[in-house]
Amino acid sequence: MSSNLTTDRPTFVTHLQCSITGERYEADTLHGLSRAGRPLLVRYDLDAVKATLSREVLAARPTDMWRWRELLPVRGTENIVSLGEIETPLIPIPKSGGGNVLVKDEGRLPTGSFKARGLVMAVAMAKELGVTRIAMPTNGNAGAALAAYCSRVGIETIVFCPEDTPEINVREIAMQGARVWRVNGLIDDCGAIVGKGAAEGRWFDFSTLKEPYRIEGKKTMGLELAAQGGWRLPDAIFYPTGGGTGLIGMWKAFDELEKLGWIGPERPRMYAVQASGCAPIVRAFEAGEEHAERWEDAHTVAAGIRVPRAVGDFLILRAVRESGGKALGVGDPAILKAVEECAKQDGLLLCPEGGATLAAYREALKTGEVDEDERVVLFNCATGLKYPMPAAPQTLDRHGAIDFDAL
Amino acid sequence: MSSNLTTDRPTFVTHLQCSITGERYEADTLHGLSRAGRPLLVRYDLDAVKATLSREVLAARPTDMWRWRELLPVRGTENIVSLGEIETPLIPIPKSGGGNVLVKDEGRLPTGSFKARGLVMAVAMAKELGVTRIAMPTNGNAGAALAAYCSRVGIETIVFCPEDTPEINVREIAMQGARVWRVNGLIDDCGAIVGKGAAEGRWFDFSTLKEPYRIEGKKTMGLELAAQGGWRLPDAIFYPTGGGTGLIGMWKAFDELEKLGWIGPERPRMYAVQASGCAPIVRAFEAGEEHAERWEDAHTVAAGIRVPRAVGDFLILRAVRESGGKALGVGDPAILKAVEECAKQDGLLLCPEGGATLAAYREALKTGEVDEDERVVLFNCATGLKYPMPAAPQTLDRHGAIDFDAL
Repeated sequence: MSSNLTTDRPTFVTHLQCSITGERYEADTLHGLSRAGRPLLVRYDLDAVKATLSREVLAARPTDMWRWRELLPVRGTENIVSLGEIETPLIPIPKSGGGNVLVKDEGRLPTGSFKARGLVMAVAMAKELGVTRIAMPTNGNAGAALAAYCSRVGIETIVFCPEDTPEINVREIAMQGARVWRVNGLIDDCGAIVGKGAAEGRWFDFSTLKEPYRIEGKKTMGLELAAQGGWRLPDAIFYPTGGGTGLIGMWKAFDELEKLGWIGPERPRMYAVQASGCAPIVRAFEAGEEHAERWEDAHTVAAGIRVPRAVGDFLILRAVRESGGKALGVGDPAILKAVEECAKQDGLLLCPEGGATLAAYREALKTGEVDEDERVVLFNCATGLKYPMPAAPQTLDRHGAIDFDAL
Repeated sequence: MSSNLTTDRPTFVTHLQCSITGERYEADTLHGLSRAGRPLLVRYDLDAVKATLSREVLAARPTDMWRWRELLPVRGTENIVSLGEIETPLIPIPKSGGGNVLVKDEGRLPTGSFKARGLVMAVAMAKELGVTRIAMPTNGNAGAALAAYCSRVGIETIVFCPEDTPEINVREIAMQGARVWRVNGLIDDCGAIVGKGAAEGRWFDFSTLKEPYRIEGKKTMGLELAAQGGWRLPDAIFYPTGGGTGLIGMWKAFDELEKLGWIGPERPRMYAVQASGCAPIVRAFEAGEEHAERWEDAHTVAAGIRVPRAVGDFLILRAVRESGGKALGVGDPAILKAVEECAKQDGLLLCPEGGATLAAYREALKTGEVDEDERVVLFNCATGLKYPMPAAPQTLDRHGAIDFDAL
């Protein structure tokens, strides 16, 4: 087990804060959304962190996500149920992407996706705050991470997926000890069921951004990027955006790192990538809106970003605009082409959402939105193995004559 | 990209050596098996390594597998086509295993299995030695790793799988740019086709242990275990054994580490775990034989260890015996039960071969072969996501009345 899971953990959380009104909420108490119906953000005594922790001390620690413990909310290490949250590698894709493009391969995390970052944190906090039963709507990967960590820590879980969630995701959730149901609708229809049950006191609602701690886990993507780049951030980040927790989390991470004096005021341009069949953030971005309306009749092969409505819409839009980035939509054919070319040319099997970032990057290169000299990071949010691939080939008869020239 | 991929790489290979006769072969030349038809082992000037590299220098490097470069055969860094070969985490499974059991989760490696360790090395050496076309028989995971690395470096690959190889493996191989064929037989039937084509000069034969470098990559499992344990090895290792490259590799690693003075003469007991439906090594071990006969009518859910005949049989048996370990067979029901319980109780989805090691450990506990106070490492050789799981549940109608009490 990582030596970062020390029991003499200094914690620096001061309070929680409503992301829209700024109203203050107590730490160490169970919270959902703020009274304004918006996400709560965790605040730290960053001056105290600065006085305690240096980049040199940090560099000497193992690189898993618990090296960042002073910037994370868990007070009791005994509540952390780790499955090995490694620092994910940055992988060049010179042929399908270009010489300055790195893929952050989040498929290497427990349960094969970046959802592990958020859920390991949220489950530890749920344990710390006495939650015993959790429900969640999911397009698949978040449910798998929730199930794994909750089974490990002994919290009961009920998970709801859209009807056409890939079979492998649903099976994985069930295998890992959750009760899982398909629903004939989209993720917000599932969310409505979770919300109803939560209102009746049946369970705690773990929907994206409806509890305050997943974002703290996802924030470590930004912390890692900074450390991996030698405290120099990339010029642009392409992030597949459904609920947007990771994008919001990274933006928060950069802010905290600047307050620690570990990075300067420079920021990457943040590109929120959506599928053109479900692009509420793109539409709102282009219309200059602060909030995004629900996207009707959502459809895309990239199920993980098929999120018609995001409770943190204004936080996503704010980060994208402040960074000088954009919200970009890409079509399914471009997504599938990007996945195929990255696998065939660079040996890296992206998930469709990861493929969307590559497709968006290519389009941005064409339009001059990014330059090929710029250092770019694309997020591959899950292992490509969870997704359908084209069918396999014929069978050879070992007893027959094999035509070697035709192989 | 890892800073371990430095271009001023000191290399310490002196020669290759036949594993059965001890005959010497030149390095920097393309080799298959030795003239005696047995695997070749890579030899290093370990005194020179000892004079160059300390454990302290090593500890300051990033932890990916290229930190071990002085103990690896690649001379030209430009030939390494890395996909991010991270150090794999050790994960406790307290409920399904016990308090002293750690799973080394090799499913986190590129292409989702430990095969990446061997293939990244073998492909780099193939590139270094001018190979342009490679063929391989595989139960799935090795072919996926081969395809990924070869596509990346521009080597052509042709892969042959047994007919009933899981569909996902075959598709993954094809997606990553190899030409892949199913064959109506087992892996050694596929191997015969590869051998025939190689004899005709159509391609280079990449069968397990038929080229000398996969074992050097697999060796890093032993190197990592030593470093992760603070240079103290576990008491026992349970290793799923098909071709046995990893077990042989770890045994070689421990020997090299002792010559460097980094560990003492103590060794873990090595348990070679096979499925009872394909257990040639177990049979040979119990009969006191030095070689293992082909296992007829092989069948098991753990396709990765369905290897009826291993060219390195004597090396596996020798390591197991010298270590004071055993070769152990486990039935498919025990394998499936171990996979299910580890997922449901500890949130870790093992592959069937990984499940076999947990099943064997449990049986060894019962028979008194291991004690529950002993520090044990089980190898989970691939992500559990590549394997069939029980079917998913019913669909709820969001328009109907949902019976919350029944969820």
